[in-house]
Amino acid sequence: MPELRKDPVVGRWVIISTERSLRPTSFAPASPGRAMTFCPFCPGNEDKTPPEVYACRPGHEAPNTPGWKVRVVPNKFPALQIEGTMDRRGEGLYDKMNGIGAHEVVIESPVHDQDLADLPLEHIQQVLGAYRERVLDLHRDRRFRYVLIFKNHGAQAGATLEHTHTQLIATPIIPKILQEELEGSRRYYELKERCVFCDIVQQETGENNGRRVVTMSERFLTVEPFAPRFPFETWILPRRHDDSYDTLGDGDELRDLAGILKDTLQRLNRALDRPPYNFVIHTAPVSDGALEYYHWHLEIMPKLTRVAGFEIGSGFYINPTPPEDAAQYLREIAVEA
Amino acid sequence: MPELRKDPVVGRWVIISTERSLRPTSFAPASPGRAMTFCPFCPGNEDKTPPEVYACRPGHEAPNTPGWKVRVVPNKFPALQIEGTMDRRGEGLYDKMNGIGAHEVVIESPVHDQDLADLPLEHIQQVLGAYRERVLDLHRDRRFRYVLIFKNHGAQAGATLEHTHTQLIATPIIPKILQEELEGSRRYYELKERCVFCDIVQQETGENNGRRVVTMSERFLTVEPFAPRFPFETWILPRRHDDSYDTLGDGDELRDLAGILKDTLQRLNRALDRPPYNFVIHTAPVSDGALEYYHWHLEIMPKLTRVAGFEIGSGFYINPTPPEDAAQYLREIAVEA
Repeated sequence: MPELRKDPVVGRWVIISTERSLRPTSFAPASPGRAMTFCPFCPGNEDKTPPEVYACRPGHEAPNTPGWKVRVVPNKFPALQIEGTMDRRGEGLYDKMNGIGAHEVVIESPVHDQDLADLPLEHIQQVLGAYRERVLDLHRDRRFRYVLIFKNHGAQAGATLEHTHTQLIATPIIPKILQEELEGSRRYYELKERCVFCDIVQQETGENNGRRVVTMSERFLTVEPFAPRFPFETWILPRRHDDSYDTLGDGDELRDLAGILKDTLQRLNRALDRPPYNFVIHTAPVSDGALEYYHWHLEIMPKLTRVAGFEIGSGFYINPTPPEDAAQYLREIAVEA
Repeated sequence: MPELRKDPVVGRWVIISTERSLRPTSFAPASPGRAMTFCPFCPGNEDKTPPEVYACRPGHEAPNTPGWKVRVVPNKFPALQIEGTMDRRGEGLYDKMNGIGAHEVVIESPVHDQDLADLPLEHIQQVLGAYRERVLDLHRDRRFRYVLIFKNHGAQAGATLEHTHTQLIATPIIPKILQEELEGSRRYYELKERCVFCDIVQQETGENNGRRVVTMSERFLTVEPFAPRFPFETWILPRRHDDSYDTLGDGDELRDLAGILKDTLQRLNRALDRPPYNFVIHTAPVSDGALEYYHWHLEIMPKLTRVAGFEIGSGFYINPTPPEDAAQYLREIAVEA
């Protein structure tokens, strides 16, 4: 059983995999993903993953057979374990609990070498809809406080399988940076009685501004944040207040989001020659109800520079590309309609 | 002039280099350091760096000539600029200031390919003494609130020059993770009237414990922390309360620290085949006086796994090696006396 352990000084929870412990010799550089010949995510290999928990199957085939467009399965090597109780306990001054959680994989396309950005709009909409369905389902498990949706694209960004996919991790704790965002935005709300993200959207799109805006749709805004940690760090935010990803409407809203995500990823791909990247959806925690002070958004981080332990060890980032310059490069990219 | 900008939600300050902005084409993978033929840190090239601000010269040669054992120079390409005023100002809801600060390089040895861990004990003591002298001098500049001492060892850990060196960055802000440690340890002190790090030292070295202890000296403890983010993350802490690195005594204290640092780095080198690593010294900020609640320490992070934007974007770490296993491997390594 993996363990969740809490740092007693800064309160950060980490997952310690106690079962498949890596020995010192296990840290040899990984071979590049492209060399792999067998792919458990390709059609025909449905029996090589745990049984699907969701699928988009236009032809209504049987589960765990080919014919799907989007398929969600439990991770075969999960970081957290779904069965069991949390069993919170101390160890002297330390806090820990069982590593209970869900770890799922959204296989975004049956085609092995097709990237999310290159899928047709309707298909991206189905991927985003799959995220939402899984989040709604995982919310029913009262042990979980947060569902983290994230994508590692490219080996340099941590992807261990090249077949395009997203991961969901449901946890009994709120990950540290999300907790900080919730606290920071609540403090701002107490002071101003306004959502800080709504104020950001208003300022970035206001008259005589727009230097950090990349693109906009009816409902969403793509912007380079004011204080980005990384070159070309890019955020997509709803233009109107909305605390939670899982309340996205089925039709126009999901379609609008699919459109701006495709547009944004294509700009990044063209400007930066298809960079490895990560994205993380920041959304409200499971059980708080609608929050006036929090605003869901998607953060995209192209992996262009080496992030050293230094940055992670100090929280201090040096970014060589001003967001105003990055936004201008991305605005000037021509994208498909 | 670089800019310091603050994220309006989580309060993290980042340095935006506005002068040497990297264009999209500038992010090609860096060539490995070993290929470089000219080294500005080697003896004879003293005129290729800015003039030295400190040196350890047993033979009393003139500054900026060969003969030094340890040499400290301003960084030729500093992340922050030493001249100017802070000029704190707003931009709508955002906060920023001029990128004022000091950025120095401690060249640890005149020998190009000698690693810190392999230097004689007295030499490591002189390196650690150089850190202290520079911190004490930088504290005299009332613009600075923090002096961050960190080492990137190996290209994979972010080192751009292979000649062994450490960096110092003095900043007018307190880096985020240090701020969090200060706040977390103050909260613990308010509750318990004890330093949390003293409690950690006591628990880790207590009877029927020691599973996470790597090694110990008269004054210092090397331990794998309870909730490490990374495999083989290793901390060195003073065994008795001490908030600040810069109060270390010249003789026995510095010598004891040099000994346990050498011992610890040698264990990591042998267990992990000379891994790239980072270390960061966590110490009290400049002007607070002695803090009862804070305890300086050194955090070593071998670079063994790929840290993806995901971890950075969520603050959520999955560590495949329990610290108890790592400590056992490191304890069993034989090191030079």
